[in-house]
Amino acid sequence: MTDYETFDLGATKLSCGVIVPSLHLAYKVYGQLNAEKSNLILYPTSYGAQHSDIDWLIGSDRILDPERYCIVIPNQLGNGLSSSPSNFALPFTHGRAPAFSHLDNISAQERLLREVLGVERIALVYGWSMGGQQTLHWGALHPEKVERICATCTSARTSPHNKLFLEGLRAALTTDPAWNGEWFTQHPVRGLRAFARVYAGWALSQAFYREDIWAEAGFASREDYVVRAWEGNFLRRDPMDLLSMIQTWIDSDISSNDVFRGDLNAALGAIKARAIIMPSTTDLYFTIDDSEIETSMMPNAELRPISSNWGHRAGNPQNSREDEAAIQQAVKSLLAE
Amino acid sequence: MTDYETFDLGATKLSCGVIVPSLHLAYKVYGQLNAEKSNLILYPTSYGAQHSDIDWLIGSDRILDPERYCIVIPNQLGNGLSSSPSNFALPFTHGRAPAFSHLDNISAQERLLREVLGVERIALVYGWSMGGQQTLHWGALHPEKVERICATCTSARTSPHNKLFLEGLRAALTTDPAWNGEWFTQHPVRGLRAFARVYAGWALSQAFYREDIWAEAGFASREDYVVRAWEGNFLRRDPMDLLSMIQTWIDSDISSNDVFRGDLNAALGAIKARAIIMPSTTDLYFTIDDSEIETSMMPNAELRPISSNWGHRAGNPQNSREDEAAIQQAVKSLLAE
Repeated sequence: MTDYETFDLGATKLSCGVIVPSLHLAYKVYGQLNAEKSNLILYPTSYGAQHSDIDWLIGSDRILDPERYCIVIPNQLGNGLSSSPSNFALPFTHGRAPAFSHLDNISAQERLLREVLGVERIALVYGWSMGGQQTLHWGALHPEKVERICATCTSARTSPHNKLFLEGLRAALTTDPAWNGEWFTQHPVRGLRAFARVYAGWALSQAFYREDIWAEAGFASREDYVVRAWEGNFLRRDPMDLLSMIQTWIDSDISSNDVFRGDLNAALGAIKARAIIMPSTTDLYFTIDDSEIETSMMPNAELRPISSNWGHRAGNPQNSREDEAAIQQAVKSLLAE
Repeated sequence: MTDYETFDLGATKLSCGVIVPSLHLAYKVYGQLNAEKSNLILYPTSYGAQHSDIDWLIGSDRILDPERYCIVIPNQLGNGLSSSPSNFALPFTHGRAPAFSHLDNISAQERLLREVLGVERIALVYGWSMGGQQTLHWGALHPEKVERICATCTSARTSPHNKLFLEGLRAALTTDPAWNGEWFTQHPVRGLRAFARVYAGWALSQAFYREDIWAEAGFASREDYVVRAWEGNFLRRDPMDLLSMIQTWIDSDISSNDVFRGDLNAALGAIKARAIIMPSTTDLYFTIDDSEIETSMMPNAELRPISSNWGHRAGNPQNSREDEAAIQQAVKSLLAE
């Protein structure tokens, strides 16, 4: 019993050059397509998340309204539900899973929309963090299909500092005694805990910890927050899936393809969709400075920062409703156009 | 053959409650005391550093002038030269080294100045990072002895976010296969590399990496910088010494003692010295916001931020001379008063 559907793409050539005999995309649909198929919102997943982790913002009084829109969450490749290191068969086990890029994600999602749902134009692509990376890939690679973009706490090309942050996470995880250089010989509890603790320092802001804002989310202490929210989240994940998604994130660059050949200005300039780019004022790895630089290269985009002490997690479910209201307002104004 | 001197304090009760039969302080003197013994500058060491790592800023045309001042660098406890886990004898080996606090550092340094050098008043205490923590401890615990303070990229009490950053470093290091829960059964190369990579993300700013500023320091790529500057630095250190100094840093709080009993406002208010507090505008763990809050509680202090893209390493030797000029100017104006 699952609460989602699966689209089997069959034998698929991935951007890394490997052909997998079967690629599958797990997705969930919230709400219904209208007769014109003009009300689809695509909402890709963020790092380490599955659809059930991010669908809290779908609701008639939340950011994405399933009464009016048909919202589709495609689970990103590597997240444990769609094709991932943890569910590949031989020979792609034990450290041999092919690398996924966002090109692979967008390509699989485009087939899902066209072949399964019969959708040619997307009313809105909405995404946070790695989900936001996918929205910008959509905009650059399929400008004729994407009408609107709302991208929060994200980037079109992963910045050098962001890459270093991710390399630090990867180094912490693969320091575990169970890492043999290619895979883990058992569940790397120690490595995942280090991974989680390092991550917790980056994902929120200094002010978040200075002002004990974790208390608003129901935690008793900073340690309670790190253990239950961060260690708890990552200990239940497959570590090879986590490494796979880190690589996708490090490599994320909307211009790294045959169309734009590394020209970020051209790739951002190709995005026709009306877009609102929403960095958090306190995000430590998707910085507001980077978003400002990228947004200035997009012809039809507005930079609308979220003023928040929640760092990269601005707008997330445990926050006060202020951040959510800012995003809700942005989505509403986009969809009204 | 050493280039420094050692002061043996004999049997010493540490603030953690343990009596060590011998405590020693390694120190180096640059320049000469004048007849009035009124020209002493005390310059404590920062995290992981020994005197030879930080004496580049001593020079007649640098920040601290040994022609006019007698500059003393006391190596902090735990740094491998002064008493440290790596040089304790039984029973203080194998994870049983007593914890050091800055109270222990200041107490040992005070005895050095009084008993060995015969100095009762200090013209200036200068320090960066953990060295800066010691300057503020000096100011609060010996207000009658400290005439001036220049503290860069530091805090009087380690902030919650800063603690989490340090816990992340500790977690990365102790994830190493050689960690048995109490000590390392061999040199933890994998753990030290993870430690270094995580640290490198925090110690510089996002802009430092965005703008390839490592190139100014002679590195060929970001990876070259991380491997040679960061892994290279930490792989040569004793890992138990690194853990010891992390604990000292986490616990650093000028009010955590019998005098101030946790009242930070009172402790900062007790500092009589004329002080200049110099956070870096881009420091990710000793934030300018924290420095501003603390400086506002000091009656005789000025907040003078260093505008730099070097993050926590503003003013360090590999930088362009701009940061150094700002600090040089601050020290000059302090000493002229």
